[in-house]
Amino acid sequence: MTLEKIEVTSAVAQVKNYLHNLQNRICSCLEMEDGKAKFVEDLWEHHEGGGGRTCFLDSGQLFEKAGVNFSHVYGKRLPQAATAKRPELADCHFQALGVSLVIHPLNPYVPTSHANVRFIVAEKPGADPIWWFGGGFDMTPYYGFAEDCQHWHKTAKTACDPFGADVYSRYKKWCDQYFYLKHRNEPRGIGGLFFDDLNEGGFEHCFALMRSVGDHYLEAYQPIVAKRKQHPFGERERDFQCYRRGRYVEFNLLYDRGTMFGLQSGGRTESILMSLPPMVAWKYNWHPEPASEEAKLYSDFLVQKEWI
Amino acid sequence: MTLEKIEVTSAVAQVKNYLHNLQNRICSCLEMEDGKAKFVEDLWEHHEGGGGRTCFLDSGQLFEKAGVNFSHVYGKRLPQAATAKRPELADCHFQALGVSLVIHPLNPYVPTSHANVRFIVAEKPGADPIWWFGGGFDMTPYYGFAEDCQHWHKTAKTACDPFGADVYSRYKKWCDQYFYLKHRNEPRGIGGLFFDDLNEGGFEHCFALMRSVGDHYLEAYQPIVAKRKQHPFGERERDFQCYRRGRYVEFNLLYDRGTMFGLQSGGRTESILMSLPPMVAWKYNWHPEPASEEAKLYSDFLVQKEWI
Repeated sequence: MTLEKIEVTSAVAQVKNYLHNLQNRICSCLEMEDGKAKFVEDLWEHHEGGGGRTCFLDSGQLFEKAGVNFSHVYGKRLPQAATAKRPELADCHFQALGVSLVIHPLNPYVPTSHANVRFIVAEKPGADPIWWFGGGFDMTPYYGFAEDCQHWHKTAKTACDPFGADVYSRYKKWCDQYFYLKHRNEPRGIGGLFFDDLNEGGFEHCFALMRSVGDHYLEAYQPIVAKRKQHPFGERERDFQCYRRGRYVEFNLLYDRGTMFGLQSGGRTESILMSLPPMVAWKYNWHPEPASEEAKLYSDFLVQKEWI
Repeated sequence: MTLEKIEVTSAVAQVKNYLHNLQNRICSCLEMEDGKAKFVEDLWEHHEGGGGRTCFLDSGQLFEKAGVNFSHVYGKRLPQAATAKRPELADCHFQALGVSLVIHPLNPYVPTSHANVRFIVAEKPGADPIWWFGGGFDMTPYYGFAEDCQHWHKTAKTACDPFGADVYSRYKKWCDQYFYLKHRNEPRGIGGLFFDDLNEGGFEHCFALMRSVGDHYLEAYQPIVAKRKQHPFGERERDFQCYRRGRYVEFNLLYDRGTMFGLQSGGRTESILMSLPPMVAWKYNWHPEPASEEAKLYSDFLVQKEWI
C-alpha cells in the first residue's frame, strides 16, 4: 500500500492540522477538569528539521503532571526502533507526526492515562513513499473500578466499530501484548487500544480510524476523571501510587518503542521523557497485604481479560 | 586465554569465597556507618540453577536504601547483552558470579555509589572454557566536593597500580565512556573504574586485580560517607537529589549492561532493580539557577576530567 509522491505534502498537511486541533482540544478539556493549572507551551526545533509543540502542566489541583506533545520531525534515516522488523526501510528518510500524551493525576483514585496517534512517511529516491498510521490509548489505575474499565473499553470499541467488527478485539489484544512488563509478568494497566503499521484500506480509511481513536480518548478518560477526582485519599494511597508509578517508568525506559524511537532519532529528550511520573518510589520486594485494596489491583485489574 | 576444564570448579569456588566475604565486609561497614539500620538477607534461587543472597537495608539514619547483592547463576545460553559483540559465545552455557551494590544515602551531601565485581565462565562441549572478569566502582554526587572526587580517584588508582602503570587511566576512561547518558549528553557521575572482558595475564593475575578493585571500594567510599553524613540539608537539597536520581534510573534502565543481562537471563527482578533509588522525581525541562550550588554540579563535576 503506497501513497503517490504528489500526495505526501497534502497528506502530511491534513494529518498535521488534525493533530494540532486534537492537542488543543485535549489541553482545554484537561485544564477545565483541573480548574486551576494551565498548560504552558514550549515550541522546539529538531536538529534534522521539523520540531514540535510541547504542552505541559504541573502542580494542578487534579493533575500532578500532564504532558501533551505534538511533534513533526524529519530524519535522514529511520531509527533502529522502527526498522528492526523491516530492514528494507533502513535507508529511507522519513517524516513522523504525532500527538503523544501522558496524564499523571495527584489523586491515586484517578487513573493515569496515555494516548498516542502518529503518522509516518518513509521515502527513498526512485521508490513510492511508504506510510503508516499508529496509535491507541491505555489506562493505568492504582485503585480499580470495574465500571471505569468497562466504560474505558466500551469507548474504545465505539471508536473502532465503524472500521470493522474485529478491529476493537484485535487492537485490544495488541494493547495487552504491548503494554506488558515481561520482567514482572505483569500488564502495565488495564489496556485499551494499540495499533501500528496501519495502511490497509487506503489513506482516507486509515486516517479516519486514527482520528476516531484520537477523538475518543477524551470521551473515554474525562468521565472517569470527573467521577473519581473528589475521592478522598491519604498517605497510604499516595505511597501505593508512587510505588506503582515505578512500573510506568520501567515500561517506558525498558520497552516503549516510542521512547526508543524518540531517543534514537535524536528527539527532544525533555519532551520524550515528559511521560515519566513526577514522584516515584521503588521499594525492594514489596507486596500488598493479602485481600487489601492494593492486592485487588493485581488480582482483579492487572490481568488480561475482556472488560465488555 | 582459556582455563583448563579441570580448573573451572576450583576457580569458581575461589571467586565465590572471595565474593561472599566481600559482601559481608561491605554490609558490616555500611551498618556501622549508618548506626541504626541492619541489612536483611534474602536467599533466592535462579530458575536455571544457582541463586543468590540479596542483602537489603532501608530507612536508615544515613542510608535511605542500600542493596548489596551476591549472585551465582547458571544459564543454558549467554544472554544477548553478553554476546552482541561476541557471536561465538551465543551457544555457550555459562556461570556468572558477582557482587553488585548500589547505595542511596538520605543526605544529599553524601554521594550515591555503585560497585560491581564479576566472573563469567562460558563453556560448550568440545571446547576449552572461556572466562573473564569485570567490575569497577563509580560515584554519583548531588553536591560535589573536589577533595572527595580526588580521594575517590586516588583510591581507584591505588587499586590498579600494582597491575600496570596504565591500568587506572584505561579503566577510568572506560568508566567515563560507560556511565554516560547519551540522550542527555551528560555523565552519570564523576566516574571511577570500569573494566570488562578481562582475561589477559592469566587467572591468578586477573582474579587479583578484581579483588583489588573489590577491596578498595570501601576505602574509597567510607571516608566520604563519614565526612559528609552530618552535613545539614533541607527541602531544596532533597528535591535536587530526588530530581538527579532520575538520571540514575534512566541510565540503569536504558543503558546498563548488568541490568539487561540480568533481566534477559531471567534473573531475579527484585534483586536487579534494587539499584533503583527509593524516591525519584522527574520535572519537565528543569534547569538549576545559574551560579547556584546545583549548577556547579553540572559545570564542575559532571564533566569528564582528570581528578588526580
